[in-house]
Amino acid sequence: MSQPFCFGIVGAGQLGRMLAQAGAALNARFTFLDPSDDPCGRAHGHHLKADWQDGAALAQLVSASDAITFEFENVPSDAVTTLAASRPTYPPAKALDTARDRWSEKSLFMRLGIEVPPLALVDNQADLDAGVATIGLPAVLKTRTLGYDGKGQKVLREMADVAGTFAELGNVPLILEGFIAFDHEVSVIAVRSRDGETRAWPLSRNEHRSGILHCATPLAEHPLQNVAEAAAFNVMHELDYVGVMAFEFFVVSDDAGQHRLLANEIAPRVHNSGHWSIEGAVTSQFENHLRAVANMPLGETSLLAPCAMLNIIGRMPARDAVLAVPGTRLHDYGKAPRAGRKIGHITVLAADTASLDARIAAVEALLVNDLGK
Amino acid sequence: MSQPFCFGIVGAGQLGRMLAQAGAALNARFTFLDPSDDPCGRAHGHHLKADWQDGAALAQLVSASDAITFEFENVPSDAVTTLAASRPTYPPAKALDTARDRWSEKSLFMRLGIEVPPLALVDNQADLDAGVATIGLPAVLKTRTLGYDGKGQKVLREMADVAGTFAELGNVPLILEGFIAFDHEVSVIAVRSRDGETRAWPLSRNEHRSGILHCATPLAEHPLQNVAEAAAFNVMHELDYVGVMAFEFFVVSDDAGQHRLLANEIAPRVHNSGHWSIEGAVTSQFENHLRAVANMPLGETSLLAPCAMLNIIGRMPARDAVLAVPGTRLHDYGKAPRAGRKIGHITVLAADTASLDARIAAVEALLVNDLGK
Repeated sequence: MSQPFCFGIVGAGQLGRMLAQAGAALNARFTFLDPSDDPCGRAHGHHLKADWQDGAALAQLVSASDAITFEFENVPSDAVTTLAASRPTYPPAKALDTARDRWSEKSLFMRLGIEVPPLALVDNQADLDAGVATIGLPAVLKTRTLGYDGKGQKVLREMADVAGTFAELGNVPLILEGFIAFDHEVSVIAVRSRDGETRAWPLSRNEHRSGILHCATPLAEHPLQNVAEAAAFNVMHELDYVGVMAFEFFVVSDDAGQHRLLANEIAPRVHNSGHWSIEGAVTSQFENHLRAVANMPLGETSLLAPCAMLNIIGRMPARDAVLAVPGTRLHDYGKAPRAGRKIGHITVLAADTASLDARIAAVEALLVNDLGK
Repeated sequence: MSQPFCFGIVGAGQLGRMLAQAGAALNARFTFLDPSDDPCGRAHGHHLKADWQDGAALAQLVSASDAITFEFENVPSDAVTTLAASRPTYPPAKALDTARDRWSEKSLFMRLGIEVPPLALVDNQADLDAGVATIGLPAVLKTRTLGYDGKGQKVLREMADVAGTFAELGNVPLILEGFIAFDHEVSVIAVRSRDGETRAWPLSRNEHRSGILHCATPLAEHPLQNVAEAAAFNVMHELDYVGVMAFEFFVVSDDAGQHRLLANEIAPRVHNSGHWSIEGAVTSQFENHLRAVANMPLGETSLLAPCAMLNIIGRMPARDAVLAVPGTRLHDYGKAPRAGRKIGHITVLAADTASLDARIAAVEALLVNDLGK
């Protein structure tokens, strides 16, 4: 037995849960900090039930851990600083701070020469009016912070949507983005080790419904793989990043039919669009995140087979019907069902893409998702 | 959240541990019965520390479980009967009884027309002398019960090895088998559901060192796949089997260079030669065993990529050196190292067999196994 490596994880939702599941083979131990009574990750580790800024709980997390990481980006900076002062803590505060704020992340993309949609910073209604005048309509107004799964967003289609909207969204800092008539959305999941080695998984094509990821499908040998990887690696290098990061892009076609990527956002953590890597890649995003944070060598990220991931949202489908579809692997997060809540996912594997498509269709026919919108 | 399925497992070693790891995604819960103080499975479930025949502990296991299974075959029949009276308990007592006794299992194979090596039942020295006269030398003398990893066996090479050997092996029931000059050893891992559906994984080629499995490599499209599957399915049908069973064979060549299988033994449980299925197959032996025992539909068993499994025995290799070999996945069972003890395994995956062979060689160069022999 190697001495077990002890991970501290801030947040004990399904991402923390799947990190712990990935760490089980490596004989790793997990301690979670989470204010919820019964977060689903606690099935696989010790749960410190406390607020993110509870000093005593942070100290307990430190003393229980060889290294610390996060399952979500909205951790108060103070807490991150406290943890990082005592233990290797990744990704670094700078990365969390950047990803928490849409303007910071977009500014970073622009500074690194990564193409973004037309943008304006909106701190008041006058900024909004000026932004609309420059960018045109339709456009999307997004809160700078705390947005996810389509929350904190409003599409502006006509001038009537503009007046008074700054107040309507709560008088909080916003950004305005030109509405992108994209062909499809992709993400690249990438990982960077403590010594700066980088790897990426194949691009994932992501289909959303009501702003929530519905299906993610890795794309073998996508022509924009290298472009996406380079953008992710540049961002990670700039942020002294350690661990897994997701980078979401819009794929747009120009007049000549050529595709290119426009950067949407990064998530400084394991990401829903990489869940297929548990079964579909040589090493999953979860295991490589742990390896990076613990300063272990990174694992190979290549695809094992055509596969896809379908989210289970709000309501569980009939378990046995799902398992009876060939090539399915069910992940039940052990969460109480609630409209709009991610409570599980299904990975579908197949020998070829035609067979994969048929299996995806069979699973989709069984889903009873409640998006709550 | 589906209602969590609660499994009871008799035995909490690495097989129980890996069953629980496989069940985590399905949100299953585990209770283990094991007399050891700190068996490695207890990291993933509730541990009832008690002897196999402790009535109170058996009752606790029943009350904690929706269905019950075993990680090893040497469970007293009484205990199995007690459990099966109250909960679905698989594999059935008949299968455990048969597999526990080499003569019972060989008799079953012969009754089903499955070819076996030349055999004789040895209950005393006179039987042994008669058996040697019929079968010839060299031959292998094996205890009828409680043998594993080459224990309880003696190779008889010349007549001087025969005299007094019955007493030397403890005056216990034995069988004598003709020594098979086999080409290689294979096993097929198969699974049978409660309603009689069967699946099998690709044959695994198994290399032993000092009687302990060293390396297991699944063989895509082996010409004897169908023969091995048919034998396994016939045995499982005959035993009303539910769950995963391993069936080991010798592959021998006849004068015309044709290969055929001689049945060696079955193991009524998940098996070391199927550990590569965790990463290398669409569904692992562990998940399908759980699905079968819990009456869920079986998962696909096809191979995802060329792969192999190497056992870690007695002493852990340098973790980071192993992880640095491309395509490796490390399984550390969390067991104290001891000569001859299985304390982990490494799965190696690759895009093609040439690359796989190079990676296996790289891992083998790092192993510091202590076989204790």
